[in-house]
Amino acid sequence: MTIIDSIKLLFFKKKIHKDLAILLGYIPRKWEIYELAFIHRSASVLLPDGRTINNERLEFLGDAVLDAVIADYLFSRFPNKDEGFLSKMRSKIVKRKHLNTLAIKIGVNKLIVSNSINYNGGKHISGNAFEALVGAVYIDKGYVKTRKFIIDNILNAHIDLEELEHRETDYKSRIIEWAQKNRTEISFDNQEDYSGRDRVPVFISRIMISGLLKGQGKGASKKEAEQNAAEQAYNVIEDV
Amino acid sequence: MTIIDSIKLLFFKKKIHKDLAILLGYIPRKWEIYELAFIHRSASVLLPDGRTINNERLEFLGDAVLDAVIADYLFSRFPNKDEGFLSKMRSKIVKRKHLNTLAIKIGVNKLIVSNSINYNGGKHISGNAFEALVGAVYIDKGYVKTRKFIIDNILNAHIDLEELEHRETDYKSRIIEWAQKNRTEISFDNQEDYSGRDRVPVFISRIMISGLLKGQGKGASKKEAEQNAAEQAYNVIEDV
Repeated sequence: MTIIDSIKLLFFKKKIHKDLAILLGYIPRKWEIYELAFIHRSASVLLPDGRTINNERLEFLGDAVLDAVIADYLFSRFPNKDEGFLSKMRSKIVKRKHLNTLAIKIGVNKLIVSNSINYNGGKHISGNAFEALVGAVYIDKGYVKTRKFIIDNILNAHIDLEELEHRETDYKSRIIEWAQKNRTEISFDNQEDYSGRDRVPVFISRIMISGLLKGQGKGASKKEAEQNAAEQAYNVIEDV
Repeated sequence: MTIIDSIKLLFFKKKIHKDLAILLGYIPRKWEIYELAFIHRSASVLLPDGRTINNERLEFLGDAVLDAVIADYLFSRFPNKDEGFLSKMRSKIVKRKHLNTLAIKIGVNKLIVSNSINYNGGKHISGNAFEALVGAVYIDKGYVKTRKFIIDNILNAHIDLEELEHRETDYKSRIIEWAQKNRTEISFDNQEDYSGRDRVPVFISRIMISGLLKGQGKGASKKEAEQNAAEQAYNVIEDV
């Protein structure tokens, strides 16, 4: 580790302890795992054995734990809804953009250590660090406490399930509107694939904007495939 | 519920209790949630209020819990591997075909209630029921016991991580070999998409077999995209 990195890390340690305890609502046992959760790849720390570490392993773990907690939460909260509804609700909650907004709301972005030139533009950094933080809570406190942390600090505090349930999801209309407003050429290429086991067709839709592929989606119907493709395209263009 | 269904359910209840306790290694508290885990959509049960229930909600829950437990397990088991490795290992473990094999090994298939004509051919039914079973264990016993169940009965008992780690994954070679052996026309269509935020290209590969799309994949390189597309195509053709 360079001297500059060491000084930075020292400074970071002090700042994070205060902010983190406020964010978490408790005093962590394993500070070092929480610190790691905020180290973006661009600020990877070089270990004496030559390896570099950052928050990506914790993000992998936290992403899975977050999915499980939200699945559990929705499963109990909506006892009469089918898995299609549950799955749709979860994906609305954990979609990158929504997660970034949540992460910023609880102050995760202020704790991130990054050397990326994309720091301000790369909004996903916050959502990713939030997932890594969930991973850290899980390592430090176990599943039950992590579940409580997610439900209290995120689901109950910042998510309006009622609103989310009815949130406009007609992405096809939205993207066509966007294209018309921006006088941009848009096309939907649809395909039916009969190669599955049951001879049931899978519909595949691709959206080309100014001749470039911006989204593709699959579905059991043309409509579903188009919506999935349009959602992907919509997220891409909105990010630009 | 029809009289026939009621009789069937009665019979099912008796059989499942014995087999299930052996499979689980404990006497469940909430039998009814386990019974539900084995009810395939084709044998959905009609409730007095007009709703039909089957194992799909539990499958949604169990899928997420399984992912979290495996993420945790791999995270601890491979402290020096990066998230790319962890993610690849997990997808090898939970891929449909592998999960079906595991489900059959522990005897899940014998407990399934299904009226599907695809029962024998539709091998995914076993893997899906296994996920639903994980959901049932989670509801009945909580996360910590579910984690132990998965680690003891699946990961330690039936998975050779060493072998899985080195399992041949050159799907491109495998599928070309398959096509040559079967004198089938095969083509890889590759595309570079520069529409992402960072102007970094995303490579997209599509595999056409006899003119039909059989697989598509994305990646940070042409090679990665082709491998992903080939893996998808390989799984499709193997299932036929």
